[in-house]
Amino acid sequence: MIWFGGDWNPEQWPSSVWLSDVELMRRAHVNLVTVGVFSWSRLQPTPEKFEFGWLDEVLDLLRDNGIGACLATPTASPPPWFTDGLPVTADGVALTYGSRDTYCVNAPAYLEASSRIASALASRYADHPAVRMWHVHNEYGTTCYCEHCAVAFRGWLFRAYGDPEALNAAWGTDFWSQRYASFAEVRPPRKTQYLSNPAHVLDYRRFVSDAMLDHYVRQREIVRPSGKPVTTNFALGGWVPVDHARWSREVDVVAVDDYPTSVAGHLDDRAFVADLARGWANSAGPPNSAGPRASADAYAGAGPDGMAGVAGGRPWMVMEHAPGAVLEQGVVRALAEGEAMAAAQAYVERGAVGVMYFQWRASRSGAEQWHPAVVPHEGPDTPVFHEIAAVGAAIVGRMPESPADTRALLYDEQTMWAWQSPHLPTNQIDYEATCRRWHRALGSPVDVLPVDAPLDGYRMVAAPLLHLMSAATHAALRSYVRAGGTLVLTFASALTDEHCRVTPQALDDLLGVRIVRRRPGDGHVWLDEVEPTTAKVQLRDPEDRPLVTEHSYGEGLVRFLATDLPDLDPWLTPAR
Amino acid sequence: MIWFGGDWNPEQWPSSVWLSDVELMRRAHVNLVTVGVFSWSRLQPTPEKFEFGWLDEVLDLLRDNGIGACLATPTASPPPWFTDGLPVTADGVALTYGSRDTYCVNAPAYLEASSRIASALASRYADHPAVRMWHVHNEYGTTCYCEHCAVAFRGWLFRAYGDPEALNAAWGTDFWSQRYASFAEVRPPRKTQYLSNPAHVLDYRRFVSDAMLDHYVRQREIVRPSGKPVTTNFALGGWVPVDHARWSREVDVVAVDDYPTSVAGHLDDRAFVADLARGWANSAGPPNSAGPRASADAYAGAGPDGMAGVAGGRPWMVMEHAPGAVLEQGVVRALAEGEAMAAAQAYVERGAVGVMYFQWRASRSGAEQWHPAVVPHEGPDTPVFHEIAAVGAAIVGRMPESPADTRALLYDEQTMWAWQSPHLPTNQIDYEATCRRWHRALGSPVDVLPVDAPLDGYRMVAAPLLHLMSAATHAALRSYVRAGGTLVLTFASALTDEHCRVTPQALDDLLGVRIVRRRPGDGHVWLDEVEPTTAKVQLRDPEDRPLVTEHSYGEGLVRFLATDLPDLDPWLTPAR
Amino acid sequence: MIWFGGDWNPEQWPSSVWLSDVELMRRAHVNLVTVGVFSWSRLQPTPEKFEFGWLDEVLDLLRDNGIGACLATPTASPPPWFTDGLPVTADGVALTYGSRDTYCVNAPAYLEASSRIASALASRYADHPAVRMWHVHNEYGTTCYCEHCAVAFRGWLFRAYGDPEALNAAWGTDFWSQRYASFAEVRPPRKTQYLSNPAHVLDYRRFVSDAMLDHYVRQREIVRPSGKPVTTNFALGGWVPVDHARWSREVDVVAVDDYPTSVAGHLDDRAFVADLARGWANSAGPPNSAGPRASADAYAGAGPDGMAGVAGGRPWMVMEHAPGAVLEQGVVRALAEGEAMAAAQAYVERGAVGVMYFQWRASRSGAEQWHPAVVPHEGPDTPVFHEIAAVGAAIVGRMPESPADTRALLYDEQTMWAWQSPHLPTNQIDYEATCRRWHRALGSPVDVLPVDAPLDGYRMVAAPLLHLMSAATHAALRSYVRAGGTLVLTFASALTDEHCRVTPQALDDLLGVRIVRRRPGDGHVWLDEVEPTTAKVQLRDPEDRPLVTEHSYGEGLVRFLATDLPDLDPWLTPAR
Repeated sequence: MIWFGGDWNPEQWPSSVWLSDVELMRRAHVNLVTVGVFSWSRLQPTPEKFEFGWLDEVLDLLRDNGIGACLATPTASPPPWFTDGLPVTADGVALTYGSRDTYCVNAPAYLEASSRIASALASRYADHPAVRMWHVHNEYGTTCYCEHCAVAFRGWLFRAYGDPEALNAAWGTDFWSQRYASFAEVRPPRKTQYLSNPAHVLDYRRFVSDAMLDHYVRQREIVRPSGKPVTTNFALGGWVPVDHARWSREVDVVAVDDYPTSVAGHLDDRAFVADLARGWANSAGPPNSAGPRASADAYAGAGPDGMAGVAGGRPWMVMEHAPGAVLEQGVVRALAEGEAMAAAQAYVERGAVGVMYFQWRASRSGAEQWHPAVVPHEGPDTPVFHEIAAVGAAIVGRMPESPADTRALLYDEQTMWAWQSPHLPTNQIDYEATCRRWHRALGSPVDVLPVDAPLDGYRMVAAPLLHLMSAATHAALRSYVRAGGTLVLTFASALTDEHCRVTPQALDDLLGVRIVRRRPGDGHVWLDEVEPTTAKVQLRDPEDRPLVTEHSYGEGLVRFLATDLPDLDPWLTPAR
Repeated sequence: MIWFGGDWNPEQWPSSVWLSDVELMRRAHVNLVTVGVFSWSRLQPTPEKFEFGWLDEVLDLLRDNGIGACLATPTASPPPWFTDGLPVTADGVALTYGSRDTYCVNAPAYLEASSRIASALASRYADHPAVRMWHVHNEYGTTCYCEHCAVAFRGWLFRAYGDPEALNAAWGTDFWSQRYASFAEVRPPRKTQYLSNPAHVLDYRRFVSDAMLDHYVRQREIVRPSGKPVTTNFALGGWVPVDHARWSREVDVVAVDDYPTSVAGHLDDRAFVADLARGWANSAGPPNSAGPRASADAYAGAGPDGMAGVAGGRPWMVMEHAPGAVLEQGVVRALAEGEAMAAAQAYVERGAVGVMYFQWRASRSGAEQWHPAVVPHEGPDTPVFHEIAAVGAAIVGRMPESPADTRALLYDEQTMWAWQSPHLPTNQIDYEATCRRWHRALGSPVDVLPVDAPLDGYRMVAAPLLHLMSAATHAALRSYVRAGGTLVLTFASALTDEHCRVTPQALDDLLGVRIVRRRPGDGHVWLDEVEPTTAKVQLRDPEDRPLVTEHSYGEGLVRFLATDLPDLDPWLTPAR
Repeated sequence: MIWFGGDWNPEQWPSSVWLSDVELMRRAHVNLVTVGVFSWSRLQPTPEKFEFGWLDEVLDLLRDNGIGACLATPTASPPPWFTDGLPVTADGVALTYGSRDTYCVNAPAYLEASSRIASALASRYADHPAVRMWHVHNEYGTTCYCEHCAVAFRGWLFRAYGDPEALNAAWGTDFWSQRYASFAEVRPPRKTQYLSNPAHVLDYRRFVSDAMLDHYVRQREIVRPSGKPVTTNFALGGWVPVDHARWSREVDVVAVDDYPTSVAGHLDDRAFVADLARGWANSAGPPNSAGPRASADAYAGAGPDGMAGVAGGRPWMVMEHAPGAVLEQGVVRALAEGEAMAAAQAYVERGAVGVMYFQWRASRSGAEQWHPAVVPHEGPDTPVFHEIAAVGAAIVGRMPESPADTRALLYDEQTMWAWQSPHLPTNQIDYEATCRRWHRALGSPVDVLPVDAPLDGYRMVAAPLLHLMSAATHAALRSYVRAGGTLVLTFASALTDEHCRVTPQALDDLLGVRIVRRRPGDGHVWLDEVEPTTAKVQLRDPEDRPLVTEHSYGEGLVRFLATDLPDLDPWLTPAR
C-alpha cells in the first residue's frame, strides 16, 4: 500500500469545507494528508496564546474518516509577531516578514519560539490516532548572514579545524592576504568588493546545512516520544544549502518535493529525482538504533501495511508534487491527460512509499493562489480532480517496488555547489543538467548515489564532472575499481579536494594518463588534454587528441571521457 | 482655442535669454507655459530664505506678452537642504538627494516644507494676471517604504478594514501563517525572504496612491483661493502607483504626460492615451461643487475662451509630450517631418484643450539635458523649432473636439497592478499592451473608460483581461448587458476580486458557460477551457474546444473570447 | 634588454617550492618578479606584529639567482584585522573583507595602516640588491561612497571651484532644483530616486582618481629614498575610476595590466593597449625633476641595461598579462601555439621595456585559482611553460623598440566616462570599442594619445566620438590644424564641455558646417545633420545629406565624418 494524498490547509477554509474535503479525499483514495505546515499564526495567534481547538477538530475528522495525518511543525512560516530572529541577506538587508521562511536558525529567539510551538504540538498530539507521521518544518533553505550566524559559523569552523592555521591552510587564505589570526576574525561571506574565496563560500553552505540540520534534529527529538516516524521535506535546486545525502541519515523517511521545470521532460525529471531520493534513502542505511529514534518496526507499524515490505535502507516518498501541471519558465502549464498517472507510476516504480501533492485544495489568496491543486478553484468536477482520483484508485493499493540495477550514477550536491563558484575555468558547465543527461543515457531505473555510498555490487559506476573529490572519494573509487568495477569518469573531474584546493595529477594514476592541460572552450565545453601512460586510447579527435581512454586498474576498468561527447551510449557498458 | 506651449525653466538661463524666449514663444503661438516645476532651490535657497524677485520678473514678462502661466508648486524636486523626509526603498536603502522625486509624502517634515513653499507661492501670485492655472507638484510617483509610511499605511488599513480580522480575511493571511493580531503588526511590503502576499502589495499601491492624493489635495486647497483651475500632471506607466481614474475627480483638468516608446507606433500610442485621458475626464463628472473648489465657471473664465465650450465632464490636456522625437529603447529618435503636427492633431481630435511640450528650451546641464525641446541646443533656426511653430499656428485657434463613439474599452489601472503580481498563472500577459492592441482594433476615437464609469449609451463595451473584478464591477457589467448592451470579455477575466482573492465561476452565469480550467501556455497565451451551458459557441479550435461563445443575457449579449485570437475584428461589432 | 617575468607569490607555497621556482625562472630567462602584492597578512599578521623573515629569504634567494624583484607594497589587499576603513557602496552597503580591494583611500585608518606597512618595507628593503623597482599597491580601483569620502569630496570640490556658485554653474544644479548653498551640502552620488546629475557623477570619478593618486604619491614618497623607480600597475576598463593620462606623470614607468577579452582579437587588443600605454608614457614627458623623485639616471641604473636606451618620455611596460590564455565571456580559453610569442612581440615592438605575466605559479586556492599561470597546476612539463620559456629566450635580450608614426589617435578616459552617463541621446555608443576599431583601421603601431598631448609633428590626428571637449582641447585642436595638421573628427563630438554642459555649435567654425540636429538612431548609430558653410561635402547619403565634409582651416584640414561609416579607410589619409 502506498501513502497517497497531499498538503491540506484547512485553516484557510471554513469548517463546512472541511467536511466536503474529507468526502472528496475518500473519493480520491487519499490515506494521508499533511496538515499544519502554515498554521503557526492560527495555533499561536500571539506569543502568549495557543489555540488548538480547530486542529483537534481537524484531526478527529481525519481519524473518523480513516485518513492519516502527516502532522507538521509550522516553524517554516513564523507569524508576524515573530520579529526578533529574521534573516539578513549577504548585502546586509534585514528582511521583513510577510512571506514564508523568515527565520534564522541560529537566532536564539527563533530556536526558542520554534521549540515552543513544536513542544506544544508534540505533547498534545503524540497519541492522536490520526497522526501517522511528523513533518518537521518545511523545505529548509533560508540562508542568513546575520551576527548570530557569524557566531555560530565561528563555532562550526572551530569544531571543523581546531586552530586557525588549519583553516588558513584549508582555505588558502594566503591568496589575497586573508589569513585569519583567530576564528573571531571570520565572517559569513557577506558582500565584499570583489570575488569571495570559494572555500569560504563552500564551507558556509556546509555550515548552513548543518545549522539547519541541528534545528531539524532538535525538533525531531521533541516529537520523537510519540513513536511515529519523523521526516522533513527536501527542497531541491541549486540554491538550496542542504546536503541531502547527509540529512537522509537523520530522517525516518526520505521525503522529496519534486517540481520539474518542463512539460516535455517532466517524466525524465521525475525519474531522476526518484532514483536520487532512493539512492539517498538506501545509502543512509537502516534507521539509527542509538537514541530515541523510531525503530524500523515503529515506522512500519505507523504506515500503511505495505511499508513494512520495503527492503533495506530507509523508505522514500514524494512529499510534494504538483497535480496535473508544471511551472515552466513562469507559466503554469497543464499536463496532458494521462501524464499525472504516468508521474505517479514513475515514482512508485522507483520505490516511493508515498505519492503526495501540493496542495489538496487551491488557496483563494496568497502568493501561491495559482499553485496547481488536486481540488482546483473550479471544484471537483474538473479534469484535474477526476484524473488525480483515478491515480489514487490505481496506485494506492500497490506495493512500492524495489528496483535494482547493476549500474550507478554518482551525484554530489557539494560538487554542485563547487560548480557554482565564481571564476571557474568556464561558466558553461551545468552540473545538474549534465547528471540528468547521463541519467537519461543510462536508462532508468538506475541508482543515483551520493559519493560516499557503498559501491560494491555495481558492475558500473558513472561519475560525470566530479569537480570536488576528497581523499576519501579518491580512495573509494580506487577501491571500487580494484575490486573489479567499471568506473566512467569525465573531463573536469578531481579538479579540487573538499576545500576547493586544486589537485593536479590526482587522477593520473587511476586514469593511466597524464593530464597536461585543462582546456575549456574551443569548440567543446571542455577538453582535458591528456598524454596516455598506461591507458589505451579508444577515441581520438581529428587532431589526434585522445577523447576516450580506458585503463585497467586492479581487477577493474576506468573509462575516461576527456570531453563532452554527443553520444554517451557506447561508453556506458560495464566491462564485465 | 487650445492651450499651446510647454515647460519653461527660466531659472536655468540668464535673463537675456528670457527675452529671446518670449519672442520665440510668440512666434510659435504659445499661449501657456508651465513655470516653476524645478524652482524650489531658487525660490527658497535655504530653509529660512525666500527669493521671489526673479519669478516676479518672469511672470510680469509673460503677462506683458500675453502668455499665460501654468504656475507649478516646486515640491516634486526638493533642494539639497531638504534631508529629513527622503524616501527609503523596499530594501531599506535610504536614498539621497541629487535627483528629483526625493521625498516621502508621509514624512511630517516633507508635508510641512511642501506646504510652506506652496503657501508662499499661493499668497504671492494668487492674483497675478499671468497665472491661468496651477500645476501642483510634478508626476507624483515616489513609492517609499519608511517608518512614516508604515504608520500611515496602518491608519489607511484601519480606515479601510476597521478590524484586523477583516484585513486577515481580505488578504487571506492564513496562507503562510501571516495573520495579523493587530494593525500595528502590518508593515509595508518591504523585501522579504520569498514572495509577498499579492493583496498586501496591491493595497500598498492603493495606499501610496491615496497618500499622494492627500498631498495633492492639501496643496490644491492652498492654491484654491486664487480661483484658478488646479491640476497635476499624470505620469503613466506600469511603475506608477497612482490610480488616475480616482485622481481625475480631484483635478480641474485631467493633465497627462505622454511619452510613446516607439517611432512606428507613436500615433497609436498617443491616440490610446488621449482616449484614456478623455475617459478619465468624462467619467470624473462635473467638478465637485462642495467645498472651496473652483466652479466650472471660474475654470472657464480662466482658460482660453474655447475652454468654456467643452461639453460635459472635465476638460483634459496633454501637459507634456516630447517635441519631434521619441525615446525608443534608450535612443532619442527624431520623428519624420509632419509627425509632430500629426501628434498634436491626434490629441485635439480626441478632445484635448491643451497641447504642451516638455520642454521649451533644452537644458545645457543635468540628467535630462538630451531631452527633446522646442528650442533645441542648436537654437530656433532648426527643423524642430520650425515644425513646432507651425503646429502652434495650425492648432492654437482650433476648438477641442468632442468625439463620441458608441463603443468603449475598459482599462483599469488596478487590474494592471494585479497583473504585475508575482507568481501568476503565467508571466506572458502584458495587460497594457493588450489593451493598446484592442484599442487599435476598435479604431479610434473610442472611449477608454475606467471600470466604474457609467456605461449607458454605449452599444458595445470591450474589457480584455479584466483580472480584478469587485462585486461592484460584476454588478455594473451585468446591469449594462441586461439593459441591452454588448459586452466583450476574454479569458483570464474575473480571476479575482478586488483583494486578489480567486473567484472561480464568478462569470459563469454571465457567460453562459462553465469554466473548468484556466490554462495558460500550450500554443497560446492562455485558454479558458469552457463547457457551454446556455451560451452558443461561435468558434472552436481544431480539438473542438470552444474559443468564442455568445450568450444572451437580459436584453443584451455577452461575447467571450476564451483565448488570444490573432484577429479581433469579427468580434468587435455590437449585437445591435 | 627587456624585463621578463611575472607576479610571484611565494607566501602561498612552502619554501621547498621556492627553490624549484627559482630554478624554473632561470630556465625561462626571467629577470624580474613582482613579490609581495598579496603579502600583507603574512608581513603583518596582527596590527602589532611584523614578520619579515620569510621575505628576507625570498629576496636573498632572488639576489643569489640574479633575478630582480619588483617589490610591492601590499596595500591593495588588507588583512582581516583591517576593519575600520572598509568601502561602502552607492547603496550604502558596508562591504566586508574576504576578497581584495577592501579599503577606502579616504579613511584615516586606512591611510595610517597602509603608510605603516609601506614604511616598514621601505626601511627594511631600500638597499636590498634584489629590489629593482617598487610596485605600489595593485590596480587602484575601489570606488567608495562613505562619509570619509563625502568629506574629502567636499574638500576636492572646494579646491576645484572655490565657491558654491561656481559649482552650481558647472553642474547646472538649477536643473531639478539641486542648487547647493554650501559645499557642506554635497554628497557622493549615492543611490537616489531617479537619475543623478552627470556632472556630479563625472566629478566624483575625477575625485576618486585624485584621491587614489594622492594615496599612491604618499606611498611613492615613502619608498622613494631607495632611489629605485616606482610605479603602480594600471587596471584598464570602463569601470576604473583612474585617469591614467594624469597618473602617468606620477610614475617612473607606465605599467599596464592587459587582459584582452577575445581569442580572435587578442593581438589587436594588445596592440591598442600597447600604443595607448606608450602614448601615456610619452605624453607624460621626462620624469619630474622636482622633489625626491628618481632621476632618469637612477631609473636607468636600476633596470636592465637596455632601459637607458629608451628615448624620450618615460618607459612603459606590461606588468601583467595572462600566459597562454584569454578569459572570454566567462571561459578561460587557451591560445593556440605561437600566440603567446606573438603577444610578447606585439608589446616589444611597441616599445615595452618589460613583459610580465600574472602569475608565475598557479594558486591552489582562492578566487583566482584558475587564473592562467606560467607554471600551471600541471607543472612545468606542459605546453604553457614550454612556450613561455621560449618567449623569454626570444625577447629578453631584445631592445625595446621606439616606434614612431606620423598619425595619432586621441583616446580620452574622461570622455569614456562621459559616454557612460545615464540618459544620453543614445545608449548605442561604445566609445572604447569605437576607438579600438579606429585603431585597427589606422594600422599599427600608431600613437594613441591623451587629449592634452602635444600634437606637433603628427601629419594626421583622428579623434572619434570626442563627446567631452574643454576649452583647452578646443584650442589645442584648432592650433594643430592651423599649423598644417589633418584632423579627423566624427559625429557626436564636442557635445559638452568638461562639466558635461552642452556646447552647441562649438565645432561649427572648425568644421565649416552648421550642425542643425544631433540624430541618433534611424538606420545608423548617429547622424549629425549639417549644413555646410565653408566646408566641402565629400560624401552624401541617398537622401543627399552630407556624410563627410572637409574644411580647410589655417594651413591644415579638418575632415568630419557625420555618421558611422562602414569603411573608414578612405578618410584616414593625411591631407599632406
